[in-house]
Amino acid sequence: MLTNDQIKKANQHYVLQPWSKQAKRNPKIITDSEGIYFWDENNKKFYDMNAQLVYANLGHKHPKIIEAFNQFKELEISAPGFASESKAKLAQKIVDLAPNNMAKVYFTTAGAEANEQALKMAKAITGGYKIFSRYRSYHGSTLGAGNLTGESRRLGSEPSPPGFVKFDMPYLYREYQNFEDEKALSAQYLTRLERQITSEGPDTIAALVIETIPGSNGVLLPPDGYIKGIEKLCRRYNIMMICDEVMSGFGRSGEWFACDHYDVQPDMITFAKGVTGGYLPLGGVILSKELSTYYDDNVFLSGATYSGHTLVCEIGNVAIESYEDMDLIKHVKQMEIVMNERLEKLRVYKYVGDVRNKGLFGAVELVKNKQTKEPLIEYGTAQGNDKQGYMRAFSQLLLDEGFYTFAHESHVLVTPPLTITAVEINAAMDLFENALVRFEEQFPKMNEGYPAHL
Amino acid sequence: MLTNDQIKKANQHYVLQPWSKQAKRNPKIITDSEGIYFWDENNKKFYDMNAQLVYANLGHKHPKIIEAFNQFKELEISAPGFASESKAKLAQKIVDLAPNNMAKVYFTTAGAEANEQALKMAKAITGGYKIFSRYRSYHGSTLGAGNLTGESRRLGSEPSPPGFVKFDMPYLYREYQNFEDEKALSAQYLTRLERQITSEGPDTIAALVIETIPGSNGVLLPPDGYIKGIEKLCRRYNIMMICDEVMSGFGRSGEWFACDHYDVQPDMITFAKGVTGGYLPLGGVILSKELSTYYDDNVFLSGATYSGHTLVCEIGNVAIESYEDMDLIKHVKQMEIVMNERLEKLRVYKYVGDVRNKGLFGAVELVKNKQTKEPLIEYGTAQGNDKQGYMRAFSQLLLDEGFYTFAHESHVLVTPPLTITAVEINAAMDLFENALVRFEEQFPKMNEGYPAHL
Repeated sequence: MLTNDQIKKANQHYVLQPWSKQAKRNPKIITDSEGIYFWDENNKKFYDMNAQLVYANLGHKHPKIIEAFNQFKELEISAPGFASESKAKLAQKIVDLAPNNMAKVYFTTAGAEANEQALKMAKAITGGYKIFSRYRSYHGSTLGAGNLTGESRRLGSEPSPPGFVKFDMPYLYREYQNFEDEKALSAQYLTRLERQITSEGPDTIAALVIETIPGSNGVLLPPDGYIKGIEKLCRRYNIMMICDEVMSGFGRSGEWFACDHYDVQPDMITFAKGVTGGYLPLGGVILSKELSTYYDDNVFLSGATYSGHTLVCEIGNVAIESYEDMDLIKHVKQMEIVMNERLEKLRVYKYVGDVRNKGLFGAVELVKNKQTKEPLIEYGTAQGNDKQGYMRAFSQLLLDEGFYTFAHESHVLVTPPLTITAVEINAAMDLFENALVRFEEQFPKMNEGYPAHL
Repeated sequence: MLTNDQIKKANQHYVLQPWSKQAKRNPKIITDSEGIYFWDENNKKFYDMNAQLVYANLGHKHPKIIEAFNQFKELEISAPGFASESKAKLAQKIVDLAPNNMAKVYFTTAGAEANEQALKMAKAITGGYKIFSRYRSYHGSTLGAGNLTGESRRLGSEPSPPGFVKFDMPYLYREYQNFEDEKALSAQYLTRLERQITSEGPDTIAALVIETIPGSNGVLLPPDGYIKGIEKLCRRYNIMMICDEVMSGFGRSGEWFACDHYDVQPDMITFAKGVTGGYLPLGGVILSKELSTYYDDNVFLSGATYSGHTLVCEIGNVAIESYEDMDLIKHVKQMEIVMNERLEKLRVYKYVGDVRNKGLFGAVELVKNKQTKEPLIEYGTAQGNDKQGYMRAFSQLLLDEGFYTFAHESHVLVTPPLTITAVEINAAMDLFENALVRFEEQFPKMNEGYPAHL
């Protein structure tokens, strides 16, 4: 056993940590956890309002998962070329939970790899090489997934390979005032997208990839008719529709998959995170009947050492059983209302521009000025480069209050374990309000001269 | 519990399996395993002479690993932003085992992702965008790793992004007769490589990536002086040297890393597979001091949900403790001799062109004709397209004998768990010889008119 000091020193010395300058970090240690809570090395208690990284959907130390680990002595490890019970059961279960047109699963170990494989399949089947994806999206940080990504985190994956085309997505909060209703907003974006598709040449386009509900860029809920309109365009031009549900899948939005809200049947759905409650690394691609039939007689020209790893799949099975035992989808629908009430209450605060949630997929968007909607920090600015330090300051206030979450640009995620109760949501959101009060005290007056067109 | 029939049907119906046409497969199920053995659904016993996929280095059902799974109830799961004991300990241990210039570890969940991240780091630090890698190499099947790959499995990852440049590697068996000694062969390849580097423009080149010993393309052992010469060229032209040790690392070749044999200090080493004995999915990049210092004050613009997953890292720690408890590196050096003796004995067989091994990293290369060295199936031919069915037939004979392994083109890997004993090697190689005898009976005469220049 190392002391906490030794752990911190060894981490600092030996571990390269994502998305940061290494010299300046001072990461916490989780020394205990239970349900939606964890404790750090100072024995301070936190509400895990990010479910670690939007994956601990079942909360911490779930007893069924722990029990499953204890059963591992009876399990075999086998390479992807073998059939196995845990892999077969999990694939069948996921297909059962997915939209009706889905037929097969290709397992990966993470969401980025799932997106990579979906792109390969789309290219192989359509013969196209172009991939449409959206600005303000995040899809991972390998070369393919990184170039799907439509925001500053893409920059580490450039130069971009040929064929990665970006289009813009509707942003209700910043545009709604200019449109009669959501449908009109959707229609405009869809018209522009269709123009872009025809300009690029539909036959060259293999796939169109969307986060059904973009997550780390601020839970940007799609306006009425938009997702269905995307599906229609994909069908009209024979383009594979891929829904990235790495964050939004497995109950986060109040359905098994977020695309269930919008009456669509994508060609592929990618997933990770919630599928195991984060207890082990797992991801995958769910393929439509059409695609799986294609591969009956065509070689799937891809592979990975840990595809369908038997022990990992077993934890996936136990995790999904736990979702069902706890009737978590129904629970999330109920908690959606509680969280929505608490989020709506935040609108009275000076720097809260917008709040939104679908299920327990929630976000708060901070602005300098509610009239101009000037974002708290400029779009495309990493927190580390936020010179005035507004978001850093607010994140620190949340931590001081014991509200742990993830912030990106001017958005703060509110994405707790799906097991959270109404009492716990209310208690956590009290902490969020405390942080907002202290933030207003710390910054009584911000720049108010920014134009509204962003 | 599903019956074996139900498992097979569900696999067939719901699981997309790597590298194959889905309709024609009939995968086995592993129903029991122990040490270097496993049993299939017909209770047939196999020597696992591929260690599943060159990862089960500790053998099946290793008691210390099973014990570790049973301890999971005390462990926390924490996102990559936290420090954790298992992550810190494992990073420190890996740095200790790696060449002296190594300083930090970035954890991934697989080898392909490790290669992807190594490329990103090399580009960020050097400012170059070109990546040199070799024909007859395999590095994974995501977009970046797939385009590093220099053989037919790359085709699923095309079109190639800009900057991926391939060079040729020496192939001792097919070229040695033309050179005075290995050094002369190395010198010629290094001269050509230098010409290629200067022609491409050294300042545009970020990295040169090699499998220190190419694995699935047939354990192509580097000739004397070649790897050291690669290092010299990298230093001369300020190119990052990246050794892919996903297969060759963690004792496979008789050292912790294969680059230890060649007195080199690469800038990065990528690993996966053996690090956990395959019991859970883990990979990573080991970075040199120079690189890790760069990231002290520069943002590492990448990340992944499961980077440094606490439970997975714990299994990594227990696996490495097991390597040390069993003194596996020393054991592999001893078993290298036993395996080499048995491989050399195969040269008397009609269709055995070459045998080679370093540690327990072994391969047998089959040919139609020992004089002309015509390969058993044409280079670039997937087994599924091997029209005469020679390799399919030989693979089936091995399976019939109870010798499980992996074959690619005309190579058969001999890569058992590192725990294998001399008695077990001899018993397994008896089975291999039985298969060769039966193969000669089945194919008494093959085409002998092929030119030798391949």
